[in-house]
Amino acid sequence: MGWGDLGAFGEPSKETPHLDQMAAEGMLFLDFYTANPLCSPSRAALLTGRLPVRNGFYTTNGHARNAYTPQDIVGGIPDSELLLPELLKKAGYTNKIIGKWHLGHQPQFHPLRHGFDEWFGSPNCHFGPYDNRERPNIPLYRDWEMVGRYYEDFKIDLKTGEANLTQLYLQEALDFISKQQASQQPFFLYWAIDATHAPVYASKQFLGTSQRGLYGDAVREIDDSVGKILKHLQQLGISENTFVFFTSDNGAALISAPKQGGSNGPFLCGKQTTFEGGMREPAIAWWPGHIPAGGVSHQLGSVMDLFSTSLSLAGLQPPSDRQIDGIDLLPVILQGKLIDRPIFYYRGNELMAVRAGLYKAHYWTWSNSWEEHSKGIDFCPGQSVAGVTTHTQEEHTYLPLLFHLGRDPGEKYPLSFASEEYQQAVENITGLVQQHKDTLVPGQPQLNVCDQAVMNWSPPGCEKLGKCLKAPESDPKKCSWPH
Amino acid sequence: MGWGDLGAFGEPSKETPHLDQMAAEGMLFLDFYTANPLCSPSRAALLTGRLPVRNGFYTTNGHARNAYTPQDIVGGIPDSELLLPELLKKAGYTNKIIGKWHLGHQPQFHPLRHGFDEWFGSPNCHFGPYDNRERPNIPLYRDWEMVGRYYEDFKIDLKTGEANLTQLYLQEALDFISKQQASQQPFFLYWAIDATHAPVYASKQFLGTSQRGLYGDAVREIDDSVGKILKHLQQLGISENTFVFFTSDNGAALISAPKQGGSNGPFLCGKQTTFEGGMREPAIAWWPGHIPAGGVSHQLGSVMDLFSTSLSLAGLQPPSDRQIDGIDLLPVILQGKLIDRPIFYYRGNELMAVRAGLYKAHYWTWSNSWEEHSKGIDFCPGQSVAGVTTHTQEEHTYLPLLFHLGRDPGEKYPLSFASEEYQQAVENITGLVQQHKDTLVPGQPQLNVCDQAVMNWSPPGCEKLGKCLKAPESDPKKCSWPH
Repeated sequence: MGWGDLGAFGEPSKETPHLDQMAAEGMLFLDFYTANPLCSPSRAALLTGRLPVRNGFYTTNGHARNAYTPQDIVGGIPDSELLLPELLKKAGYTNKIIGKWHLGHQPQFHPLRHGFDEWFGSPNCHFGPYDNRERPNIPLYRDWEMVGRYYEDFKIDLKTGEANLTQLYLQEALDFISKQQASQQPFFLYWAIDATHAPVYASKQFLGTSQRGLYGDAVREIDDSVGKILKHLQQLGISENTFVFFTSDNGAALISAPKQGGSNGPFLCGKQTTFEGGMREPAIAWWPGHIPAGGVSHQLGSVMDLFSTSLSLAGLQPPSDRQIDGIDLLPVILQGKLIDRPIFYYRGNELMAVRAGLYKAHYWTWSNSWEEHSKGIDFCPGQSVAGVTTHTQEEHTYLPLLFHLGRDPGEKYPLSFASEEYQQAVENITGLVQQHKDTLVPGQPQLNVCDQAVMNWSPPGCEKLGKCLKAPESDPKKCSWPH
Repeated sequence: MGWGDLGAFGEPSKETPHLDQMAAEGMLFLDFYTANPLCSPSRAALLTGRLPVRNGFYTTNGHARNAYTPQDIVGGIPDSELLLPELLKKAGYTNKIIGKWHLGHQPQFHPLRHGFDEWFGSPNCHFGPYDNRERPNIPLYRDWEMVGRYYEDFKIDLKTGEANLTQLYLQEALDFISKQQASQQPFFLYWAIDATHAPVYASKQFLGTSQRGLYGDAVREIDDSVGKILKHLQQLGISENTFVFFTSDNGAALISAPKQGGSNGPFLCGKQTTFEGGMREPAIAWWPGHIPAGGVSHQLGSVMDLFSTSLSLAGLQPPSDRQIDGIDLLPVILQGKLIDRPIFYYRGNELMAVRAGLYKAHYWTWSNSWEEHSKGIDFCPGQSVAGVTTHTQEEHTYLPLLFHLGRDPGEKYPLSFASEEYQQAVENITGLVQQHKDTLVPGQPQLNVCDQAVMNWSPPGCEKLGKCLKAPESDPKKCSWPH
């Protein structure tokens, strides 16, 4: 989902009344970022509070390449990483993940081995349908065992776009919340639905209801579902005791637009890129009775902050034996403070850009290669900024391209290298980069090796369902990451 | 000002609390249009309820060329046109224009000859400073006579961007409203300030207050001023008796961005073009006690509707002896109705595009000429859509380019000519175009002839001020309209 996909963020169809209402009752973050322009690394960052380059969710197969966890990936979240639910357990929380895990699907990476108590969802994205010979369909798990596969037992009709998955995930959330309220147990619910990812789907009741086509139908269903979750909290009388945060894991995938991709509003490019369209996200905090209604914040925020903020809410300290990139946003949310901190824009193993205040310096620019572009893969459709949306990896390390995101949110007008404004801003950012790089201890890269043998052939529970498939022989290879 | 310049429309700095509040208390129009991508024709359309091609505010000097009223223009609003204030007089209204008139500056075009009772402002844009030999500085009028000139008596510091004009225009508005309230007279106030037009200015108290630079300072001053006007109406106890509408006369001038130009949000291109960025406008209706708070409308609206709507509010009928393009929006605003009507996008003498429902058909595409483009004049900076943002005038009359503005608000993905969707939508729009062209009676073009002798050399009142200048000899020429 992109920054520009919600009515509150200026989507011209304005079809998200529940999220807009959530913002009106809570706090809207206008300068909130994901930790990576792609799904798996962002989600790993959210749950660890650490940049993907630290927690291992990156590749060194090529320079500045995006990578994620397809089902032939060998790696996943290392045991050495401490995940938010593992820590919250110490404060008596019950932790549930509903939806896409995406931090590795081999047994050692199972979410219930990393702090979650319950799971209903899939380890990988809902791509398919596959033939179960070359490639198995993705399983859905309930806790430790699979309960079926996408397309087979959990239908997604790619012709009509119909699938009731978001409704299943909604009901699961409502039930979990009811159970926790009944048992008076504190809970952490990670509602990680995979709509609006392509192939885009929506339930029958939402199909054809949006001005925006199928993608808009999916957004409307998410909007409606969030509304139902918030209402449920209110009806159970626990809304003033429950902190809710809404955001996304990368910018809208413009490559799938207009049928399967959304909007990044006035920002440049989309998913896969380190321009604003790839990483600035819609973000709303909601906590009636605590967050002043209608608040707006320009705090530079990150999904990694949800790690630190959640710990803070539970009265816990973040781990002190490692670098945590997230910050506690409670002073921002509750007292309106602004905390000075930079935003680092990584693509794979490369620090592409850094934002400090309203300035953003690009050390590397790249949209995608000419080879990919010539195949019709375009991360910036209809947009072209000379020297900025480059199709070769352009290094600007010694003279970064600098933009002022207040005057130029679309990253179209680099500041003059000769200006005093440039020199002051770059001097400041250079210091931040130096400090960052000096202390950086990169994690073991998890997204380098792919092997068809590790795919979801025989997930636990497959025997009961008669859904075990025969794995081919192991044939580990370097994963191909063209972007 | 562009669609994307207000917080309520998704401007990332969200610096327009008063206009956002106006929308929260009133009705936000998301699909509201000006009648032309340039200032003078839009303003003529607003006050006549008629397209510029009918009321004469266009040129035939070249095909599909934008034109306006610089101070060497010979033409202006014809006497045969009936302006909104002329009609409102019949219902006892006192009419005042504050700010830029722009419908011709020769004596016969004076606003007080066309229905206004009072005027404080200028006939032309605040371009300058001029030398008063080749070209006089633009005068400001109070009613019939000039009271000074821009840059001389009404300072605009182009270096610092400081000018207190918006404050003068604000005070004038507050005073007029007070006077009308005291005398219990109904009034029509056309608060036609010329901020945020380039050269952009703001008052000292707003300079440097915006994240967006000088342009944002100007927007903030407008926002603050509107807030003060609304508050004044409330304090005088007449807010429930006063209908207020906020909009702009063309999209943000991206050619002046980022220092002097604003944002058209997710839309394509800007001022001067018939893409959405050139003509879709921010629009808010406010009338406490009548308009339900927080309303949102997808009515296809036009500045020309303000003519018909205002007449309706005053209990008057629009003239029946001529074609009126505006419609009465009261059923939309008060009862939430949607009225089926097309939007016609003209550039000069050519119907470039038509919107019906969510479909927009382009019959001609043009951004600007290669010759102008090579001089650095770019109406679509950073944007380039192959076959759409063309630098030659491309005719598509027999096979219009069709966009679905719900799925594709940015006009990036023309629908397939072969699709059923295309054929149905184009058939519908073709019928509307046929009907429109069959009944169209173009007005005498007013924007063809320029003459240095008609410039503001010796406006009425110049003697008292010692500000009369000697006009050169008359030398009428075809005006040059390159865009």
